[in-house]
Amino acid sequence: MKGPPDRVTVDHPAWMAQAVDWDRTWATDRERMELAVELSRQNVEHRTGGPFGAAIFERSGRLVGVGVNSVVRLDNSALHAEMVAFMMAQHRAGSFTLAAPGLATHELFTSCEPCAMCLGAALWSGISRLVFGASGEDVRDLGFDEGPVFPQSHQYLAERGIGIEGGLLRAEACGVLRRYRELQGPLYNRVPAV
Amino acid sequence: MKGPPDRVTVDHPAWMAQAVDWDRTWATDRERMELAVELSRQNVEHRTGGPFGAAIFERSGRLVGVGVNSVVRLDNSALHAEMVAFMMAQHRAGSFTLAAPGLATHELFTSCEPCAMCLGAALWSGISRLVFGASGEDVRDLGFDEGPVFPQSHQYLAERGIGIEGGLLRAEACGVLRRYRELQGPLYNRVPAV
Repeated sequence: MKGPPDRVTVDHPAWMAQAVDWDRTWATDRERMELAVELSRQNVEHRTGGPFGAAIFERSGRLVGVGVNSVVRLDNSALHAEMVAFMMAQHRAGSFTLAAPGLATHELFTSCEPCAMCLGAALWSGISRLVFGASGEDVRDLGFDEGPVFPQSHQYLAERGIGIEGGLLRAEACGVLRRYRELQGPLYNRVPAV
Repeated sequence: MKGPPDRVTVDHPAWMAQAVDWDRTWATDRERMELAVELSRQNVEHRTGGPFGAAIFERSGRLVGVGVNSVVRLDNSALHAEMVAFMMAQHRAGSFTLAAPGLATHELFTSCEPCAMCLGAALWSGISRLVFGASGEDVRDLGFDEGPVFPQSHQYLAERGIGIEGGLLRAEACGVLRRYRELQGPLYNRVPAV
């Protein structure tokens, strides 16, 4: 009757330990997005996953969590960059919400527009601002899907206090998407319309 | 420069080891939903999380993964019942998609209608059918949010080969929601519209 012990681990690729300076302050939006895009770039160059990176900061500029797409590496379709970043940040905060009393205000910077799953997760995460680089259209042009995301999806988050802004360092983020195509990275979890 | 080692573990509450008979076959839709609702009920009675349970079966009736809401227990807002079930099933399958060549066809049974995050995750998971019990409205009546889910969200999945059916054992699933309210279970990750 007893099944196998079910235990799933989420971690970063080995290169992450050297990729991030946890001691500095990330003062501007541009610096924060540079980190997200740099993580996406390293994930591609190291062949550890899809061309997506994300980072979560306190509004003051303190870094609290990072993530890169880890779907193929960890056999787990939920591990988009944003999801990993949310999990890591909440783990450090010791809370299931980054909006817990006593915590600073948190912002997500992600190299590409979030898919339907990550947009929903953003709502539950406790962040109060979401900034992305490349657009959903850029991602779809590469051959990935974004799932059921509509203009009213962003509106829904906005009405609940989560501002969404796109296009910061879009060209740089798109460069990483192109590099992934060049290296013939896999288009995992693709579900074409019938 | 090097940050703390980031590692997040996803597991089941201790009672799960005795709650599921992994050797039997779950022949009918009703039997499969009974398991999902029973898991939600036990999660509430054991005070280990929200009133939500999910299970993934091969079409033949073999059980391959279960999950209960573990948001508060594991400090992780992504760990809705469906997300845990997807992760466990893919971990056992050794694949980032349950639709990998050589695998059987997979179906998700979940005690309540999936939120926006879980609906997106369902699209990436590789399941080909999704059956839920209580409706999104039932869940919202309890005080939880479902996020940006619209009629065209379900349509989007249907067009990609994922049939969605609701209302199976709805009364039983709603009974668990009422029991959660009775026990004054927390409404974690609630984000009211402004």
